[in-house]
Amino acid sequence: MKVYFVSDGTAITAEVFGSAMLSFFDVAVDTQSVPFLTTQDQAYGLKKQVDLEVENGVPPLLFYTIADIAIREIIQSCDCHCYNLFGDLLSPIEKALGVPAQPTAQKAHGMKEGVYDGRIDAINYALANDDGVSIKNFDQADIILLGVSRSGKTPTSLYLAMQYGIKAANYPITEDDFAAVGLPRVLKEHKKKLFGLTIDAQRLHEIRTGRMAASKYASPRQCRYEIEEVESLYRQERIPFLNSTKLSVEEISTKVMAEMQLVRHRQ
Amino acid sequence: MKVYFVSDGTAITAEVFGSAMLSFFDVAVDTQSVPFLTTQDQAYGLKKQVDLEVENGVPPLLFYTIADIAIREIIQSCDCHCYNLFGDLLSPIEKALGVPAQPTAQKAHGMKEGVYDGRIDAINYALANDDGVSIKNFDQADIILLGVSRSGKTPTSLYLAMQYGIKAANYPITEDDFAAVGLPRVLKEHKKKLFGLTIDAQRLHEIRTGRMAASKYASPRQCRYEIEEVESLYRQERIPFLNSTKLSVEEISTKVMAEMQLVRHRQ
Repeated sequence: MKVYFVSDGTAITAEVFGSAMLSFFDVAVDTQSVPFLTTQDQAYGLKKQVDLEVENGVPPLLFYTIADIAIREIIQSCDCHCYNLFGDLLSPIEKALGVPAQPTAQKAHGMKEGVYDGRIDAINYALANDDGVSIKNFDQADIILLGVSRSGKTPTSLYLAMQYGIKAANYPITEDDFAAVGLPRVLKEHKKKLFGLTIDAQRLHEIRTGRMAASKYASPRQCRYEIEEVESLYRQERIPFLNSTKLSVEEISTKVMAEMQLVRHRQ
Repeated sequence: MKVYFVSDGTAITAEVFGSAMLSFFDVAVDTQSVPFLTTQDQAYGLKKQVDLEVENGVPPLLFYTIADIAIREIIQSCDCHCYNLFGDLLSPIEKALGVPAQPTAQKAHGMKEGVYDGRIDAINYALANDDGVSIKNFDQADIILLGVSRSGKTPTSLYLAMQYGIKAANYPITEDDFAAVGLPRVLKEHKKKLFGLTIDAQRLHEIRTGRMAASKYASPRQCRYEIEEVESLYRQERIPFLNSTKLSVEEISTKVMAEMQLVRHRQ
């Protein structure tokens, strides 16, 4: 089944929403995004392509978010199942808000004028404070993620920065930390910002093997040992933590946000 | 105006779609995400909070994506403007596809079972190949971003990895490259993968000043010089490029994807 995501902007909204709708169905799809469609010529070009698809079999699905009425009509005339994602809700929301919608191309994923994108700072912060590289900037952190090597700290830090402008540092827990009594001093000072990640030992073994096969580092025994120790450290120090094994980066990040009551720096 | 994004999953779909709808209106909003709402108790708890908001003034807006019917009914009974984001489209899509929707909690942003998340590899690749650190892995790159220091290479590389599983390396163009004839050899070998970023000299000056004020590096003269040289290099070598000054990371990334016809490694 061919599926199009069409937009006068990035097409991210159409992709996210369309994919979410499709996740309800057990159907194999071949998706194509068509971003930045802003002229009638481009719309006619797309219509030609879509109508051709129909001749070859099943009519495609097409999800679109487009502000210009003339362009919308061209798209809507395609010989396929067309869904105007903003169509049904815009007028109820107008009524609820008591103000009319602005008929401009929607800029949901564009730059907000006059608003500096704090996410770039947050990304730079995450990179500069990845893997305990620099521990002197923990004052600025919104959160400090803990975990053994390859338990998901770096992707989570970057996702929090990229999506929410959250400054996330991360600190690797190693055997040195297990041997010590209590937390390293640098962490103790920021106890309220700490959040632990853990992962099933078997999964950790697989991930580490992909990185360094047949090493002590990747051995099932070492992985079990590190996970047992790090979880006992979290419990002893009353650090909130979660197991990332079956979670996507999005799920880990949103769960961490909720649990730590982090406030996003960007809508 | 208080706005809630409520979901039995990450709430990312509700956030993205709800925010896109709200971007049509010139109204100040105070948003709150409520992810992982999966029990009737939690739903009643939220209802209590929302109904309290109403007593204090304007009824809030509430966008939700929830699969369970009983929980949905509790949410729908809140004294506010409630929008079931999947409500209106699910049954037309059922008809179009000829198969019924699965009534499970939607997992649009969860892990696909049995599918390894290639984005983690792509993120690690972007980090290992950031800023020309390692040039020996360019064979594996889907794309190699070029640009002078602080023209947006790193955030774009990371966004491409995080959202689309694209392996994006990046290579900083410096004065040494301007002095040489043609492209560095390491880039010549991968000419088809090259994409250039540029930025207005004034904006580059501002960004670099934030990093290293009153330096030659940040001076308007140096910034103008580097931008002129890098754009002339792109033209001379026929490297496609775009100006990132007024674009968000999302816009840069989706434009690059479209222009280079990159195929996402993840739906």
